[in-house]
This record gives sequence, C-alpha cells and structure tokens, in this order.
Amino acid sequence: MAGMKARPPRLSKTILSDVMLPADANNHGTVFGGVLLRMIDKVAGVCAHRHAQRSCVTVAMERIEFKIPVQVGDFVMMEAQVNYAGRTSMEIGVEVHAENLDTGKRRHTNSCLVTMVAIGPNKKPCPVPELVPETSDEKRRYKEAQERRKGRLA
Amino acid sequence: MAGMKARPPRLSKTILSDVMLPADANNHGTVFGGVLLRMIDKVAGVCAHRHAQRSCVTVAMERIEFKIPVQVGDFVMMEAQVNYAGRTSMEIGVEVHAENLDTGKRRHTNSCLVTMVAIGPNKKPCPVPELVPETSDEKRRYKEAQERRKGRLA
Amino acid sequence: MAGMKARPPRLSKTILSDVMLPADANNHGTVFGGVLLRMIDKVAGVCAHRHAQRSCVTVAMERIEFKIPVQVGDFVMMEAQVNYAGRTSMEIGVEVHAENLDTGKRRHTNSCLVTMVAIGPNKKPCPVPELVPETSDEKRRYKEAQERRKGRLA
Amino acid sequence: MAGMKARPPRLSKTILSDVMLPADANNHGTVFGGVLLRMIDKVAGVCAHRHAQRSCVTVAMERIEFKIPVQVGDFVMMEAQVNYAGRTSMEIGVEVHAENLDTGKRRHTNSCLVTMVAIGPNKKPCPVPELVPETSDEKRRYKEAQERRKGRLA
Amino acid sequence: MAGMKARPPRLSKTILSDVMLPADANNHGTVFGGVLLRMIDKVAGVCAHRHAQRSCVTVAMERIEFKIPVQVGDFVMMEAQVNYAGRTSMEIGVEVHAENLDTGKRRHTNSCLVTMVAIGPNKKPCPVPELVPETSDEKRRYKEAQERRKGRLA
Amino acid sequence: MAGMKARPPRLSKTILSDVMLPADANNHGTVFGGVLLRMIDKVAGVCAHRHAQRSCVTVAMERIEFKIPVQVGDFVMMEAQVNYAGRTSMEIGVEVHAENLDTGKRRHTNSCLVTMVAIGPNKKPCPVPELVPETSDEKRRYKEAQERRKGRLA
Repeated sequence: MAGMKARPPRLSKTILSDVMLPADANNHGTVFGGVLLRMIDKVAGVCAHRHAQRSCVTVAMERIEFKIPVQVGDFVMMEAQVNYAGRTSMEIGVEVHAENLDTGKRRHTNSCLVTMVAIGPNKKPCPVPELVPETSDEKRRYKEAQERRKGRLA
Repeated sequence: MAGMKARPPRLSKTILSDVMLPADANNHGTVFGGVLLRMIDKVAGVCAHRHAQRSCVTVAMERIEFKIPVQVGDFVMMEAQVNYAGRTSMEIGVEVHAENLDTGKRRHTNSCLVTMVAIGPNKKPCPVPELVPETSDEKRRYKEAQERRKGRLA
Repeated sequence: MAGMKARPPRLSKTILSDVMLPADANNHGTVFGGVLLRMIDKVAGVCAHRHAQRSCVTVAMERIEFKIPVQVGDFVMMEAQVNYAGRTSMEIGVEVHAENLDTGKRRHTNSCLVTMVAIGPNKKPCPVPELVPETSDEKRRYKEAQERRKGRLA
Repeated sequence: MAGMKARPPRLSKTILSDVMLPADANNHGTVFGGVLLRMIDKVAGVCAHRHAQRSCVTVAMERIEFKIPVQVGDFVMMEAQVNYAGRTSMEIGVEVHAENLDTGKRRHTNSCLVTMVAIGPNKKPCPVPELVPETSDEKRRYKEAQERRKGRLA
Repeated sequence: MAGMKARPPRLSKTILSDVMLPADANNHGTVFGGVLLRMIDKVAGVCAHRHAQRSCVTVAMERIEFKIPVQVGDFVMMEAQVNYAGRTSMEIGVEVHAENLDTGKRRHTNSCLVTMVAIGPNKKPCPVPELVPETSDEKRRYKEAQERRKGRLA
Repeated sequence: MAGMKARPPRLSKTILSDVMLPADANNHGTVFGGVLLRMIDKVAGVCAHRHAQRSCVTVAMERIEFKIPVQVGDFVMMEAQVNYAGRTSMEIGVEVHAENLDTGKRRHTNSCLVTMVAIGPNKKPCPVPELVPETSDEKRRYKEAQERRKGRLA
C-alpha cells in the first residue's frame, strides 16, 4: 500500500505454545481438535496483527488434518508466518508440533493455512503492508499462496 | 458393518448452542474464529458418537469461511448431521447460525464438514453402523459426500 | 403491554446443550449441581430475552431436585419455554435431559422454574409482550404459573 | 449414627469468597445468577463434606431469590453451616453477602437452603454424624429445618 | 495522608478460599504453584483494595516456598492482612492453609508477602490511609515490614 | 548423576507465549499479576521437565517485581532456561516480555527465578542430569545461581 513500508515475513513470525491439560482432552486422553483449532486461530491472529500492525479477523481456514493425536501432558508449539499479503488480506501458514516432555520426542502434527483480514477503525477491511519474501523458502511459499488464491478466485 | 444395525441420519442429528460472552471476543467485539471452531468440533464429535455409539476423534476439517461475524451477546446454534459413513469414518456436516437476541434476527454464518473416526477399546479405528439416508436431502448429502471422498482418495 | 405485540411461547422456546467434561465433576465422576444450575440460568435467560426482545436478569429460582446424577461424558440438553408473562416478569420452565452417548439412553434429570425480569435502558424492570399460549399444554402451564404467582404474592 | 461422634455446626462452618470478574457478568455489568448458584453449590458441598467427613452430592436446592444485584468488581462472601442432619442427608444454610470494595458497603444479597447427601465407597448414600446444635440460633435453625423436612415428607 | 482516616488492619483482613479441582493439578495430582500464586495475588488485591478503598495493582511478591504440596480435592484458605502502609504502597501478608476434607486435617502450606500500590483516577499511584496496628502481633508485623522496606530501599 | 547424560541449557530452553484477554485484567485494563505468575510457573515447569526428562514441581519462587504493567491485548512471551542443576533441584530463570501488537513495541516486564524439583515414580525428589553451561552467559548464570544457593543454604 502506498505510504506503508513493505515488510519481510521474519518481522511477523510468531510462536505460541502451551502445555495440554486434562481439561483439553476427550475420554481417550487425546486432545480435542477444537483446542488445537483455537490455538491455531490465535497464533495466526497474532502473526497477522504483527504484519498489519492492526487487529485482524479470521476470514477462512483451509482443510486441516488431525492424523497424529496430541496427548494430555504434551507441549504444543505453533509457528505462524505470513505466506502472502494481498491488499487487505493475508495468508498465514501455521505449523504445529507436539513434544512428549518425558521422552523429548517431538512430532509434526498439523499444518494449516488461515486467511486473515486487517480491520480499520471503521470496522471495515483496511490495507496491509506489502510482503517482501527474503529467503528461497519464503519466495516459494509466496508463489504457492498466490496460486492458491488465484485458484479460489477463479 | 456385519452385526451392526444400519441407522438413519435423524437418530444422530445434534444441536449444540451457547451464548457468546465477552471472554470469547477480540477487540472489535467479534467472536474469535477459534471459539466457533471449538464448538464445531464438539457438536461434530457428539453427532459422530451418537451414530457410532462409541467415542470418536476428529480426523480432518474441510475449508471453512468466516464471512459473517458473530458478535458478543449472540446466541450461536450449531446443527450437525452425518452425511456419509464409511467403514470406520463419518463425514459430519455442521451448519452454524447466530441470533441477535435483541432483534431476533438470525443469520447463517458458517458451514463446515468434519471427518471423524470411531475409536475402539484398543484405541484403534473401529467399524461404525451403515448410514441409511431417508429423505431426498439426506440422499443428496450422502452422494455428495461419497464423491468428495472419492476425490480425496484419488 | 400497549404497543407491544403479544407472542406465543413457541417463538421463544430455547435449547441449550453441552457435553459434560472432567472439569465439571466431583470425585465420583458426577457433575456438580452448580454446573447444571449455571446452564439452567443461561437457557432461561436466552428464552426470556427472546420473548422480551431485551436482556433479562434472574429474579428467583424455585426448588430444584437433583435425584438422577449426571455423569462426565453425558450430553446435557436443556429446553426452556415461557410459561407465563406478567407486566415485567416471566416464569420460565426448564426441562433437563442427560444422554449417555455410548448407549444412547436419555434420562429426564431435572425440572426447574426460573423467574426473570426484562431490564430497560435505565437498568429498571420494563414491560414485556403479553404471552399467548396456543396449545393445551401451554394453556395448562400458563394457568399453573398464574396460580403459583398468586400463591407467592398472597 | 452408631459409632460416629456427634458434631456441632461450628466444626463445619465454611466461608467461600471470590471477586466477581467481567467474565461473570451479563451486558448490564450484573453478575449472572448461575455464577452465584455455582458458588452456593460449592460452599454447601464443602460444608457438608466437613460435617460428614466424606464427599457429598447435592440433592435439592430450595427457592432462591436474586433481589439485590451483584456487580462486577464486588467481593462475594458465602457462609454455609449445617442446619440439620438426618441419617444420610444434611440441610445446609448459605448466606451470601456482596461488598463494593470502593465504598466498603456490604449487602446481604441471598439466602439459600441446600440439601446434600454423603456418598460412601459404593457410591450409595451413607450415614453422617448426628448434629448437636449449641447456640440458641443453631437450635432454632435445627428446629425449623426439621419442620421443613417433615413438611416435604408429608 | 492528610484528610484520610487512619485504619486498623482488622478492617481490611480478607479470607479467600476455594476447592482445588482436577483442572488445577499436574500429573501427580498436586496443585500447580501457579494456581496458588494467582489466588495469593487475588486475596492480596482485595485486602489492599479494602484498606485503600481504591483498586490496587501488584508491585512485587517476595520469595515464596512450596514445601508442602496441595492436593486436588483440598480446600485452600488464604488469609491476607495489611502489615504496613506507606504513602501509596502497602505490604500485605498472606497465609495459606490447605484442608483435606476427608480427614479434616489442615496444614499451613505457604506464607507470602505482596507489595501493592493504590491507583488513582489518572492511573498513577495515589495516597492510602495510614495503618494503625492495634494488637501486639500487628505491631510486630508493622515493625518488621518497615525494616524490610528500609532494607530494600537501602 | 551417574548414568545420566549431562545436558547443556540450550536443550531445555523454553518459550511460552499468549495473548492477554479481557478476562485476565483488573478494572484498569492491566493484567493481574496472578495471571503472569501462573504462566511463569508453567514455563519454568516445562523447562525443568525438558532438562530432567521427568515431571517436576515448584519448590520456590524468588522475589518478583511488577514495575511495568502488561495491558489487555498485549502478546506476552516468556523464555525460560536452566541456570543451575543440583542433585534433584534446578534453578530456572524466566524472562518476560510484552509486545503491544499495534505498535510492535516490546518491553521487558519481569525477571524471575524459580526452583523446581524432579519427581520420581514414588513421588519423591529424584536425580536430574548435570547441567553443562556452554556459552559465557550460561557460565555466568550458573555461577551466580550456585552462589545464590550457597547463600540460601547458609
């Protein structure tokens, strides 16, 4: 956006983490998908907020799989980064890892794409800074997100 | 499954509802997507549990959009039903409505598809009853879910 | 009230439901009465809000018995309806059922009468629409509530 | 009960208190009745547990009025004591006060009677110690509770 | 402070208590230190608020030991009193006891000193009433707190 | 400990972070000290668990100051690392930062030292791996913690 300084992904990279408690689990000792979805929404929101320097709301969440169960007692770490920024919306990629604290073993449990939009004082979507991917991984993510977006708009 | 009595969708239809409180909202007074995602996971879990007559876990959630914001004070009603049942997994369709209690105005805010799997005593996936769609709407949902499934497996 | 359109009970009938979690239970795996009381207060509040089309506060709750315990894992469904509406107050009847999701067995666990009052912009009680019972069951409830009220005022 | 030492009310008198937070309130800044009902159930449960020296469950709660609203920020103090003990059940009287911490003004907001039953290892009701009222106030409470009980059984 | 009436400690003595639930515990059934720290902060805040007759914020907490574990199911009672009041700050002493409700056995589990400051309408520290210790115990606490304060300022 | 492999601090370094919500605040919009203390206890617990490869309990928390208020909406990041490991106990250093997401401004708000002990299957303290500081900063922290410990034991 004119007048807004473009920003690289690293300035908004966000880590959110928490220990899973008995209150987060079903009868199998497995953490509810809904608990993880809430954390994913939170970390994506902080990441988008950091890039846009304004509060943001969730517009969409892509398909997410829960193939590897998370257990009570696991330490769950989520890392979010901006893959792509349009005029008012951003695609945030979230990677979820769970660590068994007794063994130190860490598993990649989920990946998720969240679209967020910056909200201005009038409660309408408002422009966000351009995203400037720096590393080759960031450039790949940018391109892929751009293609997904074209696919959705088409 | 051999030995399990087939069941129609109406036997597992599930309504879950709650009032949105200030603790569920961001700074715009809009309810966090994560709060709704957690409720969606819950209602889909009860619906699948009712069909399978066993506790179930979430395997995947399809793309979900949050186009119409839910406000603090809204009464959120979620309705879940089994669209399709395979050998151990079920596709659950969830429809979300939000009602402004002052005006009585009700909006359809989200639709969502959740795949759940029944878990047996050995913590492994286990067979669920066949689904017998009765109404034309149920038959359409069944067919569409079957096609989505083929698409994903392909 | 003059200028307010009378409303039948069906327009404000309300269902509130939730799964009971370990955090809701005492050491016997039985859900705390206080957890159910809080849900009863909530569902009665939404029901009154729907009838009055204004936010309401709890004025009284009649004697309630907890003869049939609710277990962790049960799905609790509460149904509330307006039995009687006076000038500013309403009597709300709440029926509570609990379902064991493994067996599908559903029990009627509690009945409860809650009196609520509509609150106006000045934070004082304010008039609510007249209640027009339609079915014979609604007419019986109306009459019984009216008699209870006379009994209390006497 | 034979073999159990009779106990005076003072040995089980219980105070439970908490500050009311924004999460406990409706849109008028008034605390939900359900929040208070949950605290009442809790303090009565501790009081009964102290008398019975076993965990107890709620059997019934008598009519309760909410005439004086409790505000967010108020400090709520609940005092519970055993009024009467039968073979396995106890009537607990709970008095609720709310204090505005800015002014120091304290109001008596509710009174409530809760019937609780002691639960044995087999999850069945089990005998509780006899209650020995000491003061004239305790003797009056004992007699009144005994009469209420007769009225209910009649 | 000129114009403010000095107050004795007994006018602000505060009891806060709660039953420890499964959600408050680690995998050993022992209550998290953080749960107790939060309650300590709360009871000290109410005690300071009562003395200052204004809302207060926490400025510091002295070293605290957790030598005696608190178990799920224990009834935790905290008693706070103002030891010393300076111009805008107060030292609050908190004593923590935990009671096993089955045996009635009560243990002193923690002691803690919290410094709180009163906050005025401009969100800046503001004067609090002088503290007038009455009993010999209060006078000793006052003197010791005064010395600790000198030690910290030195 | 004989048979246990010594571990450097970097293997147990832990980040825990969360967004502060309205439910975490007092009437000034400032986050309760108790909310931060609970997070500090949690992050120190995960860090100790990672070093000891066993669940740990809190033994003591040193003096902590709350000079810089944390606001609702701030993103709070806590970083914990093992400063020193004795036979069964560890000193964990926790640094707390709060970020205003609108401005991106980050403040160091608190430092805190927590002593934790590893708990074995018999619920008694049990040996933890030796700590091998690698960097000069880690060596300084180790030495300082060792001296603090001598001071306390003296």
